[in-house]
Amino acid sequence: MNAPHIDVEQVEAANTAFYEALEQGDFETVSEFWLTPSDLGIDESFHDPADAGVVSCVHPGWPVLTGRGEVLRSYALIMANTDYIQFFLTDVHVSVTGDTALVTCTENILSGGPAPEGGDELGPLVGQLVVATNAFRRTPAGWKLWSHHASPVLAETEDEEGEDTPA
Amino acid sequence: MNAPHIDVEQVEAANTAFYEALEQGDFETVSEFWLTPSDLGIDESFHDPADAGVVSCVHPGWPVLTGRGEVLRSYALIMANTDYIQFFLTDVHVSVTGDTALVTCTENILSGGPAPEGGDELGPLVGQLVVATNAFRRTPAGWKLWSHHASPVLAETEDEEGEDTPA
Repeated sequence: MNAPHIDVEQVEAANTAFYEALEQGDFETVSEFWLTPSDLGIDESFHDPADAGVVSCVHPGWPVLTGRGEVLRSYALIMANTDYIQFFLTDVHVSVTGDTALVTCTENILSGGPAPEGGDELGPLVGQLVVATNAFRRTPAGWKLWSHHASPVLAETEDEEGEDTPA
Repeated sequence: MNAPHIDVEQVEAANTAFYEALEQGDFETVSEFWLTPSDLGIDESFHDPADAGVVSCVHPGWPVLTGRGEVLRSYALIMANTDYIQFFLTDVHVSVTGDTALVTCTENILSGGPAPEGGDELGPLVGQLVVATNAFRRTPAGWKLWSHHASPVLAETEDEEGEDTPA
């Protein structure tokens, strides 16, 4: 195990690189960032009752996706429907405990879909305020994503003591 | 470490008990379920660059809350504004890797706020479809919550191969 500050630097770098791969539409790199049970030395030919290393993913407004098949298919779908996407990450916080790291961050997203009716131009750009919790796991090949949960920010953030408290 | 299926049972039981404490408005039990660095044997009087065991929480539509102070204050606020809340958990999935467990579940929520204008009757009941990712950490006092991220389900779930793929 590394010194704590080295762990934090490596986790932050992995988190940043994951979003860069999304921006570049680099499906292969995105896939490599998602944990596989074999990254943890688990023999995938046997049933593991603990489902160790089984990944899950929630995109903003989506239900839960479980397992590499569903998760990676969702990225392929999103990439096919997104011509342009940029993430400005703010409020990045890392908590490393043993071999697991949790990263929370605000994804300030600017994205554009394909032009309607198959035209030449880019679709309209849309801004989204999204927060994410990313769970990373330490592996011999670096920190890998075990879980990603992203959700739209709908409440006001200015006045946390206000009366508008959605349950 | 227990056998894998025992771990899964214990994590599921902790997850269920956490939601029951919320239903009962039992702030003390809710507080006890949230991890403290001292649960991990960390001396909280020194600054830990890895922020090991520092908790985070995202309520549906909310920004990220970090640290026990912010997180527990949010539950106090929600409880003060909720006269009735019930969680019907479905699609519960547990993945245990070492001393960390991730639980994903659908929270089918039925809740009611106080009556408007301080009347005697319960406010109107509201149904919400929410998905959650809960990260638990193994401690000598049982599995404790390290992170909770809940978000509203806005997309259609029937046809995952459809064209409506919010990014």
